[in-house]
Amino acid sequence: MKNTKLESMISKAAEGAILKEMMTLEVAVKLIEAVEKKATEMGLAVVVAVSNAAGRPIAVHCMDGAYHGSFDVAINKTFTSTAFQMSTAKLADLCRPGESLYGLQFSNDGKVMILGGGEPLKIGSTMIGALGVSGASAEDDSYLAAFGAAALKEVITCL
Amino acid sequence: MKNTKLESMISKAAEGAILKEMMTLEVAVKLIEAVEKKATEMGLAVVVAVSNAAGRPIAVHCMDGAYHGSFDVAINKTFTSTAFQMSTAKLADLCRPGESLYGLQFSNDGKVMILGGGEPLKIGSTMIGALGVSGASAEDDSYLAAFGAAALKEVITCL
Amino acid sequence: MKNTKLESMISKAAEGAILKEMMTLEVAVKLIEAVEKKATEMGLAVVVAVSNAAGRPIAVHCMDGAYHGSFDVAINKTFTSTAFQMSTAKLADLCRPGESLYGLQFSNDGKVMILGGGEPLKIGSTMIGALGVSGASAEDDSYLAAFGAAALKEVITCL
Amino acid sequence: MKNTKLESMISKAAEGAILKEMMTLEVAVKLIEAVEKKATEMGLAVVVAVSNAAGRPIAVHCMDGAYHGSFDVAINKTFTSTAFQMSTAKLADLCRPGESLYGLQFSNDGKVMILGGGEPLKIGSTMIGALGVSGASAEDDSYLAAFGAAALKEVITCL
Repeated sequence: MKNTKLESMISKAAEGAILKEMMTLEVAVKLIEAVEKKATEMGLAVVVAVSNAAGRPIAVHCMDGAYHGSFDVAINKTFTSTAFQMSTAKLADLCRPGESLYGLQFSNDGKVMILGGGEPLKIGSTMIGALGVSGASAEDDSYLAAFGAAALKEVITCL
Repeated sequence: MKNTKLESMISKAAEGAILKEMMTLEVAVKLIEAVEKKATEMGLAVVVAVSNAAGRPIAVHCMDGAYHGSFDVAINKTFTSTAFQMSTAKLADLCRPGESLYGLQFSNDGKVMILGGGEPLKIGSTMIGALGVSGASAEDDSYLAAFGAAALKEVITCL
Repeated sequence: MKNTKLESMISKAAEGAILKEMMTLEVAVKLIEAVEKKATEMGLAVVVAVSNAAGRPIAVHCMDGAYHGSFDVAINKTFTSTAFQMSTAKLADLCRPGESLYGLQFSNDGKVMILGGGEPLKIGSTMIGALGVSGASAEDDSYLAAFGAAALKEVITCL
Repeated sequence: MKNTKLESMISKAAEGAILKEMMTLEVAVKLIEAVEKKATEMGLAVVVAVSNAAGRPIAVHCMDGAYHGSFDVAINKTFTSTAFQMSTAKLADLCRPGESLYGLQFSNDGKVMILGGGEPLKIGSTMIGALGVSGASAEDDSYLAAFGAAALKEVITCL
């Protein structure tokens, strides 16, 4: 019985661990380039960041003409998305004055960003990282981040 | 083919690059002195700062009697105006609870100031730096910063 | 007379200004990829960052297996190289106890890195940015940063 | 008796207080301009800062071409000179490993600069502020700061 439970735990852990290892620099850069291409089509100049599941940055690109203040914001959107395992747009709703998570935005040494544009990167139900976009409107940042997150499957398949 | 791309880059770069180099210490100090003079007329004592387009400070003057806490604020208003390429008064509106950029004020390690008084300094559409005023009311700071930004053209012409 | 001074300023400004605008995302990523390739050949996993001349980051890549603590270090090596316009290896020598710049490493809110691996990126005598490498020994970081800096000319020519 | 002591205290306080009030923006800028002129003659581009006796900055000028990392250093040299009422060159000697004040450079949140170039500004024995120069060699910074400090008397006389 104990062995079975242990085996099950190991099996479950292995499942997620292997998926998390998929978040390589190659994948991160391909995702960023996909977002850059879309942003260019939309006439936007943004900063795009990808982190691993621990919220540690893997790659960051600042498109020519992007706001220099967006570097910090894009990175922290990936931190936030992994830290609370949801999009920053969803978290923004929950952090409004009067809502259930109001106050969370003042935690974690200012690294919690409640502006749309951060999306967890998932394979099935396993979060393997996050993508952060900053520099356009919150709507466009959110659109681009969701676009990048949706591209994950194709990027990994085409490796 | 390669030369054509290089030439195109150089041409595009030249357009804005030369203007940015106009932000010298001489220009910065003349702008600051224009704001000081106007503040004196209004019976105000403020801190006035000018940065380059990257948000690095070029000159800062604290008028006699100004709050010593305004030194940091004036500099960060210039950082903010260059980081997001708009006046801090406009950014303040967008960062109110419920507005599209609420949360941005918690980014960039506390250097984002959402108090009126920071203005980008522009020649045509090229941002060459920013001017920050702090120490009076947000309204008066904004008025003085806009006054200084509007004086840029005359200051450069009279060099 | 006034026009002459203005023309002289513009002429002087144009000299270096255009070169600084060459520091695009495309150039930054190509430099980073060149360093990544060399690091792979040497069996190393490092973080590589490129900033513009003002020390604002343009692109950062963390190679698979690199220390997550190196992200901050690589970025700050680029800040340091632009802030004092020399390699961090040279600055490290000058900041040793008893040397002329001992103490400088405690300035700029902890962003001064006196570990080899930061190199200014220059075209002729014009600094257009900096390259920072972190994660291997100071010797290997320095070697890789110098390798990347030396690749600048080729990277720009091959655009 | 008590009244006499109180009167003596008031008299002594008044003496110093009046002198400290001499440290105006006008004096600060004139001192900075004197240092700038001398630096230009020497072919140097430095950052020059003046603070009041409390170590709060009054004015800072970054000469064209000065290191952007020197802004923080020049300001902190004025803080340091007022904080311990001596030149930063003298403090540097006392902070060397093995010397009596070794360790002091790690206090005050990184604001203690033990590089030559910070000088108290004194009228008689009353410190009314400090002058900080950064961006050249420690020797040249020290020379320029001492030059500026020596100019104080003339600057005040010529008001």
